Amino acid sequence: MGKRVEAFESYREKMNKRILEADNRPIKRFFGVDTLTYEAGALDARTKEMLGLVASMVLRCDDCISYHITQCKKLKVKDDEMFEVFSVALTVGGSIVIPHLRRAVEFLDELSGK
Amino acid sequence: MGKRVEAFESYREKMNKRILEADNRPIKRFFGVDTLTYEAGALDARTKEMLGLVASMVLRCDDCISYHITQCKKLKVKDDEMFEVFSVALTVGGSIVIPHLRRAVEFLDELSGK
Amino acid sequence: MGKRVEAFESYREKMNKRILEADNRPIKRFFGVDTLTYEAGALDARTKEMLGLVASMVLRCDDCISYHITQCKKLKVKDDEMFEVFSVALTVGGSIVIPHLRRAVEFLDELSGK
Amino acid sequence: MGKRVEAFESYREKMNKRILEADNRPIKRFFGVDTLTYEAGALDARTKEMLGLVASMVLRCDDCISYHITQCKKLKVKDDEMFEVFSVALTVGGSIVIPHLRRAVEFLDELSGK
Amino acid sequence: MGKRVEAFESYREKMNKRILEADNRPIKRFFGVDTLTYEAGALDARTKEMLGLVASMVLRCDDCISYHITQCKKLKVKDDEMFEVFSVALTVGGSIVIPHLRRAVEFLDELSGK
Amino acid sequence: MGKRVEAFESYREKMNKRILEADNRPIKRFFGVDTLTYEAGALDARTKEMLGLVASMVLRCDDCISYHITQCKKLKVKDDEMFEVFSVALTVGGSIVIPHLRRAVEFLDELSGK
Repeated sequence: MGKRVEAFESYREKMNKRILEADNRPIKRFFGVDTLTYEAGALDARTKEMLGLVASMVLRCDDCISYHITQCKKLKVKDDEMFEVFSVALTVGGSIVIPHLRRAVEFLDELSGK
Repeated sequence: MGKRVEAFESYREKMNKRILEADNRPIKRFFGVDTLTYEAGALDARTKEMLGLVASMVLRCDDCISYHITQCKKLKVKDDEMFEVFSVALTVGGSIVIPHLRRAVEFLDELSGK
Repeated sequence: MGKRVEAFESYREKMNKRILEADNRPIKRFFGVDTLTYEAGALDARTKEMLGLVASMVLRCDDCISYHITQCKKLKVKDDEMFEVFSVALTVGGSIVIPHLRRAVEFLDELSGK
Repeated sequence: MGKRVEAFESYREKMNKRILEADNRPIKRFFGVDTLTYEAGALDARTKEMLGLVASMVLRCDDCISYHITQCKKLKVKDDEMFEVFSVALTVGGSIVIPHLRRAVEFLDELSGK
Repeated sequence: MGKRVEAFESYREKMNKRILEADNRPIKRFFGVDTLTYEAGALDARTKEMLGLVASMVLRCDDCISYHITQCKKLKVKDDEMFEVFSVALTVGGSIVIPHLRRAVEFLDELSGK
Repeated sequence: MGKRVEAFESYREKMNKRILEADNRPIKRFFGVDTLTYEAGALDARTKEMLGLVASMVLRCDDCISYHITQCKKLKVKDDEMFEVFSVALTVGGSIVIPHLRRAVEFLDELSGK
């Protein structure tokens, strides 16, 4: 695993733990809803993660993009499918998405061991 | 067809025609890219329209939401699948999405003749 | 009550009912978290509604603004306090907030029976 | 003048007056800064209004777009120049800008008496 | 003081000085309005800083969040109150706020010498 | 050239190349539209780059801001003109723009060899 992947995952885990320990009820329940949202239902988990990815990309949040790319990868979304998700984000969100697209592709390549 | 559906579609058609007649090259080519983006490729058109829908919802654009709901409906996305797309948008985008969710559901119901 | 206030409240109630009947679990639980968020805790409900108002205003959602103005009014937030919330939203969010500020003040005046 | 133009201008004037009467100091001073920003300086007023227009368009605020189109028109920005401003907004901001572009062109046409 | 706190504060001070030296009138006056906005009035400074914090969080600006956390801390906002501000931001702004929440909590802990 | 300038340009070039090699048609065509948008037409390239700059600034994308500052500089936009573009972005976009303004001015100074 490359260094952006590792740094992201260890920081995410450490801080999520810290946040949940603060014991704020709506925050804890929000995290529960967040997990529930991506569980397979009428749509399979794979489609839902792609939905999470495109939403993160048009809202331009690098960490959220990294997270959903990781999930998509685990659920066997192929690279050309991933780029089609990226293309929807780029068209809907505009050129302002491009810098996030660069970092997304770099993260994806690191994750693939390229 | 209900009145929000009709009003939206006739206005959209009239103004798109007006815009393309202005003959601005990047705008015309952008409209071409927009169409191309949703064509079936590695992902099918149905998945791509759901991606367009969730992206429109977190960016909170009622007209874009209406457009992609119409496309999803044509491509046989069922109501419970549509609501799962809505749930991803709500979780990612937050309660600020709720007023758009209300109008989305109203539009969907009108489209279904409910 | 003025007509913007009534129209907003009856539409909101009708559509929320319709959405919850769809029985999508993450959406229902999200609505639960939303309610919980504004309950008195370390901060009182009044402060929390003002926080909801300023957040709605910088994200520029008229319906969310109307909702939180109604709640603030019920919790005895005075008009000059409301305008200070507006001033924070305007400074943080910029002139793009002004059209929403106009509609917010109109809504507030209607609610006050002015 | 068409009806969207008139409705926008009379509402804007009425509510700005109401807001300034509330006598909130940062709001009043913000309105002063807003006026000052578009005065000719190193850049002429015409360029500045085009900057205000493109900024309003990517942030997707119909009223702000209408306002800056009116100002651009007064300062003799021609229709093909206006469409080039629109094209920058569309490319930077993405397809989510399209519904606002439709309303912008309709407003511009009304203003031109078309 | 931890290193994120120090780095943020010295950079902020250096660049604000540089910006104000450029002697652009609307920018200088905007900075004045910004200061004025958070002064005690109908609402106390503490409430206003919490309003600034929640607004910064839903707009997802890490530096603005850091700044308002520092101010809140100076004005004796307790950690559980701070987390309630965070919970409003999370509910209104959605899961896209989570990465900023992580960095906010890390900054807060550094500031508290944890 | 300073280190932020160099780091930005080499990363941008490397990743754009990588993205275009992926051979996704809408993405490639989007990049074409992006280039076309800033070519001189009814408006000159200089004005268009300033439009791109202000749009990037209100949407708060540091890399996009850096890119358009570089282009503006090549097209002889003077520093006081650049600051007037910044002032429009600040007024329209609000104080949330300030951290991006700091980094923009730092980038501009590095580019000018200050």
